[in-house]
Amino acid sequence: MAELEVLRDAAVLIDGDRIAWVGPRTEARGIHSAFRMPRSALQMVEVRGVLFPGFVDCHTHAVFGAPRLDDHQRRAVGESYQAIAATGGGILQSVRDVRDRTEDELVALTRLRLATLLAHGSTTIEVKSGYGLDLEAELKQLRVIRRLAAEGPATLVATFLGAHEVPPEYRDRCAEYVRLLCEEMIPAVARERLAGACDVFCEPGVFSIAESRAILTAARRHGLAVKLHADELEGAGGAELAAELGALSADHLAGISEAGIRALATSPTVAVLLPATMLFLGKRHHAPARRLIDAGAAVALATDFNPGSSPTVSLPFVMALGVSQLGLRHAEAVQAATVNAAAALGLAGARGQIAPGFAADLVLVEAADWREVAYWLGTNRVSAVWTGGLACPPPAAPLSLGFHVSQA
Amino acid sequence: MAELEVLRDAAVLIDGDRIAWVGPRTEARGIHSAFRMPRSALQMVEVRGVLFPGFVDCHTHAVFGAPRLDDHQRRAVGESYQAIAATGGGILQSVRDVRDRTEDELVALTRLRLATLLAHGSTTIEVKSGYGLDLEAELKQLRVIRRLAAEGPATLVATFLGAHEVPPEYRDRCAEYVRLLCEEMIPAVARERLAGACDVFCEPGVFSIAESRAILTAARRHGLAVKLHADELEGAGGAELAAELGALSADHLAGISEAGIRALATSPTVAVLLPATMLFLGKRHHAPARRLIDAGAAVALATDFNPGSSPTVSLPFVMALGVSQLGLRHAEAVQAATVNAAAALGLAGARGQIAPGFAADLVLVEAADWREVAYWLGTNRVSAVWTGGLACPPPAAPLSLGFHVSQA
Repeated sequence: MAELEVLRDAAVLIDGDRIAWVGPRTEARGIHSAFRMPRSALQMVEVRGVLFPGFVDCHTHAVFGAPRLDDHQRRAVGESYQAIAATGGGILQSVRDVRDRTEDELVALTRLRLATLLAHGSTTIEVKSGYGLDLEAELKQLRVIRRLAAEGPATLVATFLGAHEVPPEYRDRCAEYVRLLCEEMIPAVARERLAGACDVFCEPGVFSIAESRAILTAARRHGLAVKLHADELEGAGGAELAAELGALSADHLAGISEAGIRALATSPTVAVLLPATMLFLGKRHHAPARRLIDAGAAVALATDFNPGSSPTVSLPFVMALGVSQLGLRHAEAVQAATVNAAAALGLAGARGQIAPGFAADLVLVEAADWREVAYWLGTNRVSAVWTGGLACPPPAAPLSLGFHVSQA
Repeated sequence: MAELEVLRDAAVLIDGDRIAWVGPRTEARGIHSAFRMPRSALQMVEVRGVLFPGFVDCHTHAVFGAPRLDDHQRRAVGESYQAIAATGGGILQSVRDVRDRTEDELVALTRLRLATLLAHGSTTIEVKSGYGLDLEAELKQLRVIRRLAAEGPATLVATFLGAHEVPPEYRDRCAEYVRLLCEEMIPAVARERLAGACDVFCEPGVFSIAESRAILTAARRHGLAVKLHADELEGAGGAELAAELGALSADHLAGISEAGIRALATSPTVAVLLPATMLFLGKRHHAPARRLIDAGAAVALATDFNPGSSPTVSLPFVMALGVSQLGLRHAEAVQAATVNAAAALGLAGARGQIAPGFAADLVLVEAADWREVAYWLGTNRVSAVWTGGLACPPPAAPLSLGFHVSQA
């Protein structure tokens, strides 16, 4: 992971929505003939800056209603999650919010947010359900994702997270909710092909190891890939379960145990780390990224974009946290947000590299040195984005929105 | 600090470069007559979002050459500052860089960077010298600031920081450098009116308490206000010295002692906290913001924008860190980047408030709730900026820069 191939004065040849060739710029003018492309059909784009493969945000909860501003302040002044949740905050506030909104409202809210993710360079975005927690509201969230996936220009990957929390109406009968997930919700999601993977929030007090295993086993039986929110608070066997089940990824891992590190190091399951979440929550510790990498695990980074614990849309920001907070090298941070993030979505052969056959998803960053992508903190240096070979329209420039001048 | 006056459906009347009136929008259409303004001279600007007083960034080192990317990575993988500095990194790398560049080069580099600070809402920006460390190079940096201050549109406040580090040529004769500062450099800066204040990096191993006192006493004798980089690593009496000398501010303070907190609480010296620096450096602790506020100290936030330890241009990002990392309420974070930051520059009566007589520096933030300014992490929600009553041109939209399409 410490090595990144960096080409200077390079060119990329795009054919349709795929990359056909990448190499020295001096060879680019002639190369199209090898691909039997008529010269008249060629369009040349000259760029200034550093071109990256489109970033892959492999963990978001982008379908939500309002930001949870009260939670933020209450946590800042020292209130516990339990106290906040007991008085109307926490995940269940977003659940009530999402249940109360129409699909169209959620489409409109999410469309704007995905546009800002794209403007920060994310061309492939995983989006989870999990603020519905009943069949109807979960399917509503997944339909929002399907509609927005059809719109483009970003590639969306839907994950079913009905097991994000135990809904209030099942508070004291979690086993019934697990049965509902396994026997009704997962089959319905699979039948409608609304998600490619199923995720579970596996943590003491939420879903246990045994419950998580039951849910994910049902998901696999219905043809879904599996993922796991694991060991966020303590190393309770979540990473080991992810490896055992052949999960695409185990996510969070701030509390992962040594056994968990060994399990991921010897499995293809990707360790997805979410440092912006730890930062926003004011935690003083982070997932052991270096130990994971040194042990041989594949490490990815993601935003965890959500209204309660990670209101960030910027993977470059998360990469910079990867270097400053997790101790990654810049090259490791870039791979974590491209190649390895694609692997965490089962897309290792199609996204996250500028290489022949890969999707022509590209991000241009205003920088003299490629490492700057993971250096400038809290600002956006992405200057252009292409998906499937097409330039994405710039988002309505923020400095021009929002005000209107007239004579009194 | 926990209270912020928030007006809904409000209007601001601007006369020239000052705010003349602020109040309910329903009264705005008639109010101009009270100011004897002819109706024909009125221009109306309608905004959508939340209007803040222009943010005041009261601590930056914005005049520099190249980003220090190697330092970033070496620190991430565990090298000490001493090891990095011993092999060409650290502050002295930026000193060599600045000494080698012409004034014009530095003007061009700094102009671009100040434009991005402004685009993130900072309308008043303190800028320090301190990468020159000899008379000529320090004056060069201060002249860069003076030229850019004359250009506008942001208000720049220059601070002389010749005592940022002991220059290599004085490594073993620090007393001589202190004498040079007191007897040649400070008098020259004061004579040319190149700075309004003098700052010292007071820390064991850099400038001691006694040296700092000598330098700042000389500065006061020459009519400069004083500031202090204090107690960044340990509570060695820096905050107490700042209070004793009537400094405008004591900055950093991650290691401030109980005595230091008491000294600031009973003095007008503002405690300037720089959480982005601690984040970027990968530190696990922060200045005790809550204890400072609860003791009665005035707390400000600043970016510390510099190429080695804080490559961030965004005060809203720092405000969000204020809430998430320092335990501030949103209202405290906003006051820390406006009213209190203005006080840290001796501008409490002129900047940092939307109130009659204050500079018409305003920032519009795309938000439904004002607290969102200190909530979304790592993205820029500033949608318009005015300084001195005039709308600032939007910076060249990043998504349109950097590439050019043509037929092959």
